[in-house]
Amino acid sequence: MTKIVNDPSEMVGVNLESLTRLYPHLRGDRALGAIFSTTSPDDVVPILSGGGSGHEPAHFGYVGRGMLTAAVQGPIFIPPCSEAIYQSMKQIYKEDKGILLIVKNFEADMKEFSEAIHRGRKEGMKISYVVSHDDISKETNSFKTRHRGVAGTVLLHKILGGAALSGLTLEELEEIGWDLSTSIATLGVATRSATLPGMKEPIFDLPEAFISYGIGIHGEAGYRTVAFESSERLAVELVNKLKLKFRWKEGDDYILLVNNLGGSTQLEEMVFTNDLLQLLELEGLNLVDVRCGKFVSSLDMAGLSVTLCEVKDRKWIDYYKAPTDAFAWPNHSLNGKI
Amino acid sequence: MTKIVNDPSEMVGVNLESLTRLYPHLRGDRALGAIFSTTSPDDVVPILSGGGSGHEPAHFGYVGRGMLTAAVQGPIFIPPCSEAIYQSMKQIYKEDKGILLIVKNFEADMKEFSEAIHRGRKEGMKISYVVSHDDISKETNSFKTRHRGVAGTVLLHKILGGAALSGLTLEELEEIGWDLSTSIATLGVATRSATLPGMKEPIFDLPEAFISYGIGIHGEAGYRTVAFESSERLAVELVNKLKLKFRWKEGDDYILLVNNLGGSTQLEEMVFTNDLLQLLELEGLNLVDVRCGKFVSSLDMAGLSVTLCEVKDRKWIDYYKAPTDAFAWPNHSLNGKI
Repeated sequence: MTKIVNDPSEMVGVNLESLTRLYPHLRGDRALGAIFSTTSPDDVVPILSGGGSGHEPAHFGYVGRGMLTAAVQGPIFIPPCSEAIYQSMKQIYKEDKGILLIVKNFEADMKEFSEAIHRGRKEGMKISYVVSHDDISKETNSFKTRHRGVAGTVLLHKILGGAALSGLTLEELEEIGWDLSTSIATLGVATRSATLPGMKEPIFDLPEAFISYGIGIHGEAGYRTVAFESSERLAVELVNKLKLKFRWKEGDDYILLVNNLGGSTQLEEMVFTNDLLQLLELEGLNLVDVRCGKFVSSLDMAGLSVTLCEVKDRKWIDYYKAPTDAFAWPNHSLNGKI
Repeated sequence: MTKIVNDPSEMVGVNLESLTRLYPHLRGDRALGAIFSTTSPDDVVPILSGGGSGHEPAHFGYVGRGMLTAAVQGPIFIPPCSEAIYQSMKQIYKEDKGILLIVKNFEADMKEFSEAIHRGRKEGMKISYVVSHDDISKETNSFKTRHRGVAGTVLLHKILGGAALSGLTLEELEEIGWDLSTSIATLGVATRSATLPGMKEPIFDLPEAFISYGIGIHGEAGYRTVAFESSERLAVELVNKLKLKFRWKEGDDYILLVNNLGGSTQLEEMVFTNDLLQLLELEGLNLVDVRCGKFVSSLDMAGLSVTLCEVKDRKWIDYYKAPTDAFAWPNHSLNGKI
């Protein structure tokens, strides 16, 4: 589909420049493909994340006091190179605090981030990292869980960002991070594939009136394509799969995040959320917070994903509630509880 | 395109219920199709707006302290009936303050709102209204300016909402409203038509790699369909048309609003905004504030619109800056100035 751009090879850089022009709390480095927070306090552990572009508002939208200290992005659906990650780390590294990295579990991302971490550690930098692997969809043939890092990554940014702000050490953040990353699960569906800028055809075929289960955020097709029936049937299937993962009990605390993958309407978000809320209420879950919107997109893919985070420690809620000036995090009191 | 819904005839009602469940500062009345603010102060002039659904986050997203006291919505692209408007007015009307209505300039909307106003006035209610008519696109054959109410309507909500909050009387608000409504102009383009829920085909035909100029927000096709060249050429054409309308001088104060009509990516928003900012800088305009995002959509139409508001009175900026808890208004400091 036609995209309103100039030279597609420039759009990622222009995006960075526009964002830093619009948001005064952000400083950009176009050569690195990185955006830095100018409002994050100096005396807390800095956090760096990043990945490919095309997931807007991630990751730049989560840079700010109380979330990421910086984010570094590569071209569309391609991670930044290890050199850019390393240089970005250096800019925010604190001798007495160290640095925490949050990495999405994709082979290419892991490779670049690992290289940067190894290089930094060799030079004596104190670096910890957390891998985001919330996707619980399965491989089509092997039935292995894919564990890609998708929308749930934003909850890592928010909770770990709030925890850092409260003064936790690198070791404490790493511990919470590993706990958290196994407490978050996401499943998504698409009603239309994404189209890369400059391309005429969508990345994968999806016939009209069909949906694809377990799609990725880089335009990856899902593991199963079926005729679409209704939002309610969809919600039942996804909640069941999430229940199998979490094996929750009545009264357990959860955060619910409904993510618009790009091109779905708010009406769909709200209809689907309504179905989810009814099912989760029947299950007796205590939803500490519910957020809906575009958090981690896949360009103009139409579709929604549902993320649940089991709140194993009530302190996570305090960290989650910490205010932030990151522009993509809605600072609204939702669900009457936060 | 497939939409994630259940019964399409229920989705507008379900949207209302989900929103009031998610946002504790909102109270809904599903029978009326209305949402009311529970945080707007009692001692200010209440403001009611509304129109068809399908423009999410408008209008419900602008209900809250400092913006709308209530909004009433009809089915997709169809205004609420006069009875619903009248009953919604009654619920927020204040004997000593009166009530202000903000109406988008579409024939069907004007008819229903007028009927409700006449009925209320017959019963002695003190009602003023402001008509939003910011669309400066032209009719294909007659070349008459269409003056439909589109994305600029949100600036009326924000500035008049802030003005009401500051304690202005109904007469004062009406005066500012009429001044404001002639100071706002919008032009939009689409790269893909919207598709109604339950329908397989888009509302209008738009060939791949073409754009349509001057589209409406109810799926109306534009006045001219041309091969897409670049964001820059698009920005040049739209800024020229806006310049003809405003005949600005160097140093004039303006607010810029770049609106995503639904299905465009943030990358496109930012590339187009960058082109606009460069051109408007060359023109020497003083941009008091710049906002980008999805403000008034047309379901899943892909496209962007640009709105300029000439700030004829510096007091408008104070009203504009007043904080709000309306969930669709980004309370972020943008452009380093606000």
